[in-house]
Amino acid sequence: MAQFRIGLAQVNATVGDLTGNSDKVIEWTMRAAEQGARIVVFPEMVLTGYPVEDLALRKSFVDASIGALHQLAADLAAEGLDGIAVVVGYLDRRTGLAPQVGVPAGAPLDAAAVLHGGSVMITSAKHHLPNYGVFDEYRYFVPGSTLPVFRIAAQGGEQVDVAIAICEDLWQDGGPVAVTRTAAASLLVVPNASPYERNKDDVRLELCQRRAREAGTVLAYVNMVGGQDELVFDGDSLIVSPGGDLLARGPQFEEALVLADLDLPAADPRLPAGQQRADACDGTTMTIERIELAPLPAPEPDARLGAPMIWPRLPDLAEIYGALTLGVRDYVRKNGFASVIQGLSGGIDSALCATIAADALGADRVNVVLNPSPYSSEHSVTDAEDLAKRQGIHARTIPIKPMMDGFAAGLDLHGIAAENLQARIRGMIWMALSNEDGHLVLACGNKSELATGYSTMYGDAVGGFAPIKDVPKTLVWELAKWRNQQAAERGETPPIPENSITKPPSAELAPGQLDTDSLPDYPVLDKLLDDYVEKDMGSAELVAAGHDPALVERVIRLVDRAEYKRRQYPPGPKISAKNFGRDRRLPITSRWREPRVG
Amino acid sequence: MAQFRIGLAQVNATVGDLTGNSDKVIEWTMRAAEQGARIVVFPEMVLTGYPVEDLALRKSFVDASIGALHQLAADLAAEGLDGIAVVVGYLDRRTGLAPQVGVPAGAPLDAAAVLHGGSVMITSAKHHLPNYGVFDEYRYFVPGSTLPVFRIAAQGGEQVDVAIAICEDLWQDGGPVAVTRTAAASLLVVPNASPYERNKDDVRLELCQRRAREAGTVLAYVNMVGGQDELVFDGDSLIVSPGGDLLARGPQFEEALVLADLDLPAADPRLPAGQQRADACDGTTMTIERIELAPLPAPEPDARLGAPMIWPRLPDLAEIYGALTLGVRDYVRKNGFASVIQGLSGGIDSALCATIAADALGADRVNVVLNPSPYSSEHSVTDAEDLAKRQGIHARTIPIKPMMDGFAAGLDLHGIAAENLQARIRGMIWMALSNEDGHLVLACGNKSELATGYSTMYGDAVGGFAPIKDVPKTLVWELAKWRNQQAAERGETPPIPENSITKPPSAELAPGQLDTDSLPDYPVLDKLLDDYVEKDMGSAELVAAGHDPALVERVIRLVDRAEYKRRQYPPGPKISAKNFGRDRRLPITSRWREPRVG
Repeated sequence: MAQFRIGLAQVNATVGDLTGNSDKVIEWTMRAAEQGARIVVFPEMVLTGYPVEDLALRKSFVDASIGALHQLAADLAAEGLDGIAVVVGYLDRRTGLAPQVGVPAGAPLDAAAVLHGGSVMITSAKHHLPNYGVFDEYRYFVPGSTLPVFRIAAQGGEQVDVAIAICEDLWQDGGPVAVTRTAAASLLVVPNASPYERNKDDVRLELCQRRAREAGTVLAYVNMVGGQDELVFDGDSLIVSPGGDLLARGPQFEEALVLADLDLPAADPRLPAGQQRADACDGTTMTIERIELAPLPAPEPDARLGAPMIWPRLPDLAEIYGALTLGVRDYVRKNGFASVIQGLSGGIDSALCATIAADALGADRVNVVLNPSPYSSEHSVTDAEDLAKRQGIHARTIPIKPMMDGFAAGLDLHGIAAENLQARIRGMIWMALSNEDGHLVLACGNKSELATGYSTMYGDAVGGFAPIKDVPKTLVWELAKWRNQQAAERGETPPIPENSITKPPSAELAPGQLDTDSLPDYPVLDKLLDDYVEKDMGSAELVAAGHDPALVERVIRLVDRAEYKRRQYPPGPKISAKNFGRDRRLPITSRWREPRVG
Repeated sequence: MAQFRIGLAQVNATVGDLTGNSDKVIEWTMRAAEQGARIVVFPEMVLTGYPVEDLALRKSFVDASIGALHQLAADLAAEGLDGIAVVVGYLDRRTGLAPQVGVPAGAPLDAAAVLHGGSVMITSAKHHLPNYGVFDEYRYFVPGSTLPVFRIAAQGGEQVDVAIAICEDLWQDGGPVAVTRTAAASLLVVPNASPYERNKDDVRLELCQRRAREAGTVLAYVNMVGGQDELVFDGDSLIVSPGGDLLARGPQFEEALVLADLDLPAADPRLPAGQQRADACDGTTMTIERIELAPLPAPEPDARLGAPMIWPRLPDLAEIYGALTLGVRDYVRKNGFASVIQGLSGGIDSALCATIAADALGADRVNVVLNPSPYSSEHSVTDAEDLAKRQGIHARTIPIKPMMDGFAAGLDLHGIAAENLQARIRGMIWMALSNEDGHLVLACGNKSELATGYSTMYGDAVGGFAPIKDVPKTLVWELAKWRNQQAAERGETPPIPENSITKPPSAELAPGQLDTDSLPDYPVLDKLLDDYVEKDMGSAELVAAGHDPALVERVIRLVDRAEYKRRQYPPGPKISAKNFGRDRRLPITSRWREPRVG
């Protein structure tokens, strides 16, 4: 067995920032080299960020990515980092003749490269392209059909063979994992950009264990960290043995270098460099392309690492809160904002949003506005003021009565029109302060509201980012209680006033109005929404699952009718298996009605 | 040669309306039978409408589509329509075992069926799935691999063999077209749902001519008509001979039954019913599945048709105007609105929108609001009033000064914040009147504004539908002039005041403001936007194409920065090769900057 130190650099890349992302690769490669790693693996498309969407179709951007890759190889060597193998994801294009009918030459590739000795030594591309949920990779990429294997010296001078697969190549059967076994590789490294979803970390570990067994190798999985529009990449990199033992695991939601000393079988010297065809066990064949890296002076660690680097898993609520916080922080930061602004109604949704924002950015960068109307309860103001004081965030109060009077001078409004007007005056005030002072506006709607259409377009729905749009109302309460409890356990003031958590929810757009006037209790509603929206059950299945037939009919009608509102809602961090965004794409114009049951 | 009368029913289906669409199939089959047609062909997925998007992934909807197909077969027979072969598109699922690795059983199919004698006689599915531009068919469907050929009696009792391909099967090489030649079919019928794009009708005719030659058959292409969210299907069905002669062609933007008497080679009696493998010339093989329809009493025409039914092509501007009008009419109608409302500023954009709406819906269903501010010019009011009077649309004037004063009581705003406030007060007034009276709000922004971000979110951008969002400013003027000229030629009052067309464009949000204060002249801007947005050129290509380097840098920065605004903009009819919508999907969070040139 050869002793081999590996580093997984789970870093936070930014889409389009080729220079910044390259600098990050150099910085983290330096750390890995200082720690004696022979190889450092970065996430999928770390050079370009992920997903680049239609930028993949722009010639100038593909050119720039390829140029940045070669520049990075040279820059690493210039920094004295030529003896460590660096695996980086980037955007490439297919060169040469089209290899098969229907696959154009020059088409974009979701690629990975090995940089070593100042050069790009070998490149390959993702074989399995995901095209479901939030992914549209058939739009962008053509599949790769080579498995790169590079031979590299381990600590004692023995050689090991390292293969590369990319992200979805793990999730589908056959392809690079199967070919890795054929290639008799010592180690399979897998760059990923795998978005966070509740409970996905359990799924990932099991998947990696299964694939390590199939490949017959140690498997090292490195995932991106950071927020990108509606996606949050959570890190959670991991290494498992062929027998399924967890050898190392990174933290969630933060950058880290995960190091491990691996004991790998030495490469079979009878396997020469060059190409070999192999059945990919998925209806295609692939080419194993084996190269040997030049023997360059490489880092030599002082001693074996001590205890394995295994960060503890976060409990469910902590994990969700971490995803929301990172989502907000990165949207704000990567889009160049210094601060945020939002309404604060005294209710639980805006209270939780403000708390997430303060945790993400610091209280001094969070601004809230209290906009009482003649229908606002006294506690709406006192609860909001209480929250601002507890957290030390900037608050100002702008009553909306004068604006309501201004509109009353020109318009005679009733019912829903009058209610919406109040919500819209508030939204305009936040937008005006955003335009005046440069804050990003946060929209505070939750997933239950978004599902049923209980929000006012251009009112409470205004904003550039929506922190809790994928959080059902019942989970909003859970998160608020959890956050307060965390504070209490640390001896801090709970950030959210108890009354905001316990009082019955109300939009306060009419005297004495309560959410339960027109919606069922949230636990009942959220269960139904989960089955209809996330599990895509039809009416018959919903009733069979135990939901009240009349409620099924009423609620799915609400959900179906609100599609046009969701289309204009700002993006927010995905935490569920199916968010309102890329995950769920329904026509606005549709006369489909689930059959009435019972 | 066998004489064979065919009908192409280019109808306007509605997404999700299985009952309504089935009724439409019965109604138009009846017309075709009355005219002596042996076969009537309907568009792709006519039963479900197209595109159904994620409804394709819902079990209850697929079940309903399959159920509706069988019900339709029975209903046709009950109406005495069992002797005419009816080709209908619908949503199916793959049954039986998965035929190859990676293709799940039970996956949705973009399918077509032949209904005859009260039964579903044969079904097949689209082989080539488009996954570019506005299409995401790899998300929804698995590819079909059979070519159905059905033998049917022509007028004199001779048999002919009819093959079916679906839409994209024509656009890509190999597949059903190639296999149709192998099958020695007499006729290839092609159901389509092909969205309108400027100049696409020329491309379609050439494509059909080429494929008819390749298939060695007469080719009958039938396309959907109608608006569906951002897509407009334009009809334009056509029939070409194997030699490329145009035998029939339908109108654009209206439902029609296109009839033709075809002289077809008789089916080769040595080719028996059953299955036969064939090279699809695209790297796959397909199965030819040949059946014989029972000899049922069929319609018998009195005599050959006279002159071929070839509707004249519309000139470019008429065609675009037709697409916009149908897009608006169908969005309003299919979403259950009775009327629309919009602002009328005296400028050309809102003038054109109101005119399109009045042409689409009738003037009595169009409501406009004049919202003068202290910065509004006198002509903004007089030009708007003039338009309302010319067209007889409902107009009311609500000055925004009282609302501005209301906000001034609580907020001290400057510059862009104060300007946006005015636009937002107007938007709120339209939304309030929409909520009060049930009108759909139309947003009147053009493509040049949307590209550069020269619009106010929650201000002039409010609305459920945006008639001219894919129309560049220079084309807005062209369409306005064309519409006035059309009226003049018919001896009618030109609907748009000349002054709205000729005056320099201004948002009138500050004293003396003109668009040209901050944007280049529109002809220069629109040419650059076309190259950057539609042709996806990078900065170097743009400069090489003759655009001013400083202008390139400024304008592409504006376009890149406005992505977040476009995300929240309402949908509107696509008329270009790349609209702001499904066609162009870019990240909001992106640090990619095209390199500075020169």
